[in-house]
Amino acid sequence: MAGIGIVGAGIAGLHLGLQLRQHDVPVTIYSDRTAEQLAGGRLPNSVAHHHTTVARERLLGIDHWDAEEYFYFGHHHYIGLPDPLSFPGFFTAPSRALDYRIYLPRILGDFTDRGGDFQVRPVDPADVAELSDRHDLVVVASGRGSLSAMFPRRADKSPYDSPQRKLCVGLYEGIAHSEPRGVTMSISPGNGELLEIPIFSFAGHVTALLFENIPGGDTEVLAEARYDDDPAAFEKLVLEKTRQHHPRTFERIDPAKFRLTGPQDLLQGGVLPSVREDYTRLPNGKYVVALGDAHTVVDPVVGQGANCASYSAWELGRTILEDQTFDERFCRKVALRRENVVHATADWTNLMVRVPPAPHLLQLLGAMSANQAVADTFTDNFSHPDRQWDILASPERVRKFLAGHGMAD
Amino acid sequence: MAGIGIVGAGIAGLHLGLQLRQHDVPVTIYSDRTAEQLAGGRLPNSVAHHHTTVARERLLGIDHWDAEEYFYFGHHHYIGLPDPLSFPGFFTAPSRALDYRIYLPRILGDFTDRGGDFQVRPVDPADVAELSDRHDLVVVASGRGSLSAMFPRRADKSPYDSPQRKLCVGLYEGIAHSEPRGVTMSISPGNGELLEIPIFSFAGHVTALLFENIPGGDTEVLAEARYDDDPAAFEKLVLEKTRQHHPRTFERIDPAKFRLTGPQDLLQGGVLPSVREDYTRLPNGKYVVALGDAHTVVDPVVGQGANCASYSAWELGRTILEDQTFDERFCRKVALRRENVVHATADWTNLMVRVPPAPHLLQLLGAMSANQAVADTFTDNFSHPDRQWDILASPERVRKFLAGHGMAD
Ligand SMILES: Cc1cc2nc3c(=O)[nH]c(=O)nc-3n(C[C@H](O)[C@H](O)[C@H](O)COP(=O)(O)OP(=O)(O)OC[C@H]3O[C@@H](n4cnc5c(N)ncnc54)[C@H](O)[C@@H]3O)c2cc1C
Ligand SMILES: Cc1cc2nc3c(=O)[nH]c(=O)nc-3n(C[C@H](O)[C@H](O)[C@H](O)COP(=O)(O)OP(=O)(O)OC[C@H]3O[C@@H](n4cnc5c(N)ncnc54)[C@H](O)[C@@H]3O)c2cc1C
Repeated sequence: MAGIGIVGAGIAGLHLGLQLRQHDVPVTIYSDRTAEQLAGGRLPNSVAHHHTTVARERLLGIDHWDAEEYFYFGHHHYIGLPDPLSFPGFFTAPSRALDYRIYLPRILGDFTDRGGDFQVRPVDPADVAELSDRHDLVVVASGRGSLSAMFPRRADKSPYDSPQRKLCVGLYEGIAHSEPRGVTMSISPGNGELLEIPIFSFAGHVTALLFENIPGGDTEVLAEARYDDDPAAFEKLVLEKTRQHHPRTFERIDPAKFRLTGPQDLLQGGVLPSVREDYTRLPNGKYVVALGDAHTVVDPVVGQGANCASYSAWELGRTILEDQTFDERFCRKVALRRENVVHATADWTNLMVRVPPAPHLLQLLGAMSANQAVADTFTDNFSHPDRQWDILASPERVRKFLAGHGMAD
Repeated sequence: MAGIGIVGAGIAGLHLGLQLRQHDVPVTIYSDRTAEQLAGGRLPNSVAHHHTTVARERLLGIDHWDAEEYFYFGHHHYIGLPDPLSFPGFFTAPSRALDYRIYLPRILGDFTDRGGDFQVRPVDPADVAELSDRHDLVVVASGRGSLSAMFPRRADKSPYDSPQRKLCVGLYEGIAHSEPRGVTMSISPGNGELLEIPIFSFAGHVTALLFENIPGGDTEVLAEARYDDDPAAFEKLVLEKTRQHHPRTFERIDPAKFRLTGPQDLLQGGVLPSVREDYTRLPNGKYVVALGDAHTVVDPVVGQGANCASYSAWELGRTILEDQTFDERFCRKVALRRENVVHATADWTNLMVRVPPAPHLLQLLGAMSANQAVADTFTDNFSHPDRQWDILASPERVRKFLAGHGMAD
């Protein structure tokens, strides 16, 4: 077997490559960045892995962070209504967030230690045909970059034409973690969300503040303010917006110690949610499969993109292990296997960023504040986006779910 | 729960109904025929259940024929080339064929014994909307009849515009069964196939001869000859065509005892292979799911229609047990789950009836005659049409499969 060529050394490409190496399938990963470049540079995201992903990491033998200190146990919700709602929800098994500048180089090391071939080389669309001649199958796992344009965007599954949130995510010191340790999901109606995430980075256990700002809202300025121009002013602005909109987090901040952990530990921007076709056929007749963000991009508001990429890599890997003829039948089997979870991830996330919020989402959030089992189910479903969407896909579904918990309207 | 309404008391409707009753879901089956009418009348088919279906029958608690006498163990192949090929293939677990005029009334009895509601009532397209108001979900499992037109035929999966075989199937006495007991699949190139099936009917253990006649071929006359006009002449014609084209069966016939078991035990006609959409939306906003032949019709040449209907019923039942909101999301989940097996069944069967036969099919048949493991895999895959299609979907796939058995071209 000439093996599998994977473009991209993010979680999608690496989880796939590692799974295939466990079964001795030859794999080459092409990356436009070296291991050192993956470890350096600007904060790329603030990713939490939920327990289904952690379970896959165990199976892959890359669970290097299996200690209590890395885990968190649920979500603390705060909804800043005139009568604010504040309530927790708990997982059935914990999540953990690691700085990807630590995570990816480490598992890339696992990949090369296990015989994976890693080649630093930017791949442009014209190169893909050449790679397809060299490998049995080429997988495009290059993230949100331009290569994903090989896979047409599906209008039926991509309701937005622009990013729905303007992001400002940074790593901070000076925030005591919540008890029990968890992510705080704080909603400021009309302005957006703050996700406060306990994360392990170069500075140790720190806190990611991911502000998801609605364009035109009061916190939008966070996505525009320039840290480098005046670090102290920037930090003051973050503190002030947190105080105004997100009291559950603010009350744990020690203003004297509050600071960004470093000038590179900040990312501002926005992502355009897109669901793309699963695969494409090259002029030479070979098929290429899209994976991870190259296939489906979601807003980070409910922390699903990387988890979905890992899930999707797993299903693709299973299919490769079962069937080594990489024709349209193969691609279609991959698409069938992952569609329910991947599309549910996109649909759920797209609902979460809708402005104004859907009444049935508000109904569910209200019910969560009154019923611990409802809150726990919603929370644990961060590991099961398909089940989450079974609950949330329509007002009728929310009603039925709540009725199942003895909550009639 | 107002429960599930099912139109049709064939294997599709009954297997679904029985599964749901095991979980106390209210079910009503509507049938245009009474139990007595199901038990009487003309031979409807000559169905073999393969081991995956038998396993489901065990789970459903309807395995009333779990005795050695009902089972058969593999296929005896004969290909009437100038140098004829003759070789067996064995299952990993046996199949069995029962006259559906015995089978269906018996399991309908199980259904009503277990609290299923059975209503004799023809349902026409206009009635479906009314039923959909009365039930949470309506499933159309009405077979090849006109109701299936509610679900558009998929041109991409339905390559034929007319039946590819003219059928003549009857139950006969006077044929000793093959050793070990099996189905004989005999091919007369250019003329069609004979499937000789040990089957249990009202007369006990008899033999179904299912002639699959290529239009214009030498045996086409079997599909036109009128038994009722002259029974003896008809039986003589069958004997003569069997002698000319299907020696492996002919050699086990005692001409003195050879006769049709009864004037009703004969069916002539043809089926148009069709793959239809999985579901449709009614003007009242409710969704209706297609099941069994109402969803996908295949030629009987490889005995898959009823097995596929049972599989599909099982997957639909599982989905109903998991999710009781019968909206488009629900329907899509059903479609995703069953597509690989159902479409593989259709694609494989459509390949088997192609005239002239595809070279890669001939290549595989040739390899089967030379390699017992290859023959056994093909034979056992009558229980796994998806795996069969993994082997047969293209010349490349056949080549790879054979290479895996050490057979290079
Ligand atoms: C602020 C933020 C917070 C987030 N939080 C979460 C979270 O909590 N949970 C979660 O699950 N997800 C989260 N996500 C989403 C998550 O980061 C992504 O979904 C995930 O990292 C995508 O992984 P990937 O492997 O598909 O792509 P990437 O990580 O983008 O990897 C693609 C790789 O391909 C390389 N590459 C690109 N183009 C080429 C080319 N032409 N040739 C060669 N190499 C190329 C790139 O250098 C890159 O290394 C968050 C995202 C953001 C922005
Ligand atoms: C000769 C022959 C041999 C075959 N051999 C095999 C084999 O070996 N293996 C195999 O798996 N398959 C075989 N098949 C195919 C198999 O018979 C069918 O695929 C299967 O029986 C279809 O089951 P069903 O429940 O979908 O439909 P049906 O069995 O057709 O049942 C539909 C029911 O709905 C009722 N109905 C129809 N319209 C209405 C209406 N408007 N209102 C109310 N009720 C209605 C009908 O009376 C009928 O009872 C064979 C078929 C033939 C013709």
